[in-house]
Amino acid sequence: MTSAEPTTEALVADVFARDCTSRQAWEAITGKWGSLALAALHEGSYRFNALRRRVDGVSEKMLAQTLHALERDGLVRREVQTTIPPHVEYTLTPLGEQLAARLLDMIDLLERAMPTVTAARTHYDTTRHSPVN
Amino acid sequence: MTSAEPTTEALVADVFARDCTSRQAWEAITGKWGSLALAALHEGSYRFNALRRRVDGVSEKMLAQTLHALERDGLVRREVQTTIPPHVEYTLTPLGEQLAARLLDMIDLLERAMPTVTAARTHYDTTRHSPVN
Repeated sequence: MTSAEPTTEALVADVFARDCTSRQAWEAITGKWGSLALAALHEGSYRFNALRRRVDGVSEKMLAQTLHALERDGLVRREVQTTIPPHVEYTLTPLGEQLAARLLDMIDLLERAMPTVTAARTHYDTTRHSPVN
Repeated sequence: MTSAEPTTEALVADVFARDCTSRQAWEAITGKWGSLALAALHEGSYRFNALRRRVDGVSEKMLAQTLHALERDGLVRREVQTTIPPHVEYTLTPLGEQLAARLLDMIDLLERAMPTVTAARTHYDTTRHSPVN
């Protein structure tokens, strides 16, 4: 959905268009922390600190921002449990589940392909000297 | 593959580990511009400027950096054609094709789900007032 050109026709979402609302959602899903948080939550619900340990390297602030963005987009649900002290758990919504399953598929593919990636890097670093577009 | 703990066992790639070489590759693939460049190249080869127009909003510098990273990881091939003037074309490698196909599947899912995302955003913005982790 672009807001640039008002029209009476139904607007179609297009992540390639910089002003489309889907571009922002795409960035939240595919961002470094967003993608890993979604993939981790596919394993089950997590409390904040456990999720922070699972997504190795994320700061408290970045994880909080990431979860708010995913919650706002309807991909993650934040549930406050009425225990003493209250616990907050993060769970995927059905849409979050669908996207996370695809991310996991990509992660699996990439992890298995790392020997290929590493060989490509070695080749690139030993043969490329003067990058030109 | 983490380099933190030398071991004689075979190392298994794990994008969740911050020091794993696969984490860096994951960030290149899922980055804002990397993901869109891979998805665009799934449509076929592109010359630099055409790809820049397709990935709306990317700067020349960012696209160049993105393509170098993808080329280094063995996902994109840079081909110089011996025309006058010489043309440079970017094409996906087989591994790039596999990852791009999955990205396109995610893009398709997200674009179709935008009414759900937009409704979630409206709900979030009207009900959430004091975010606490």
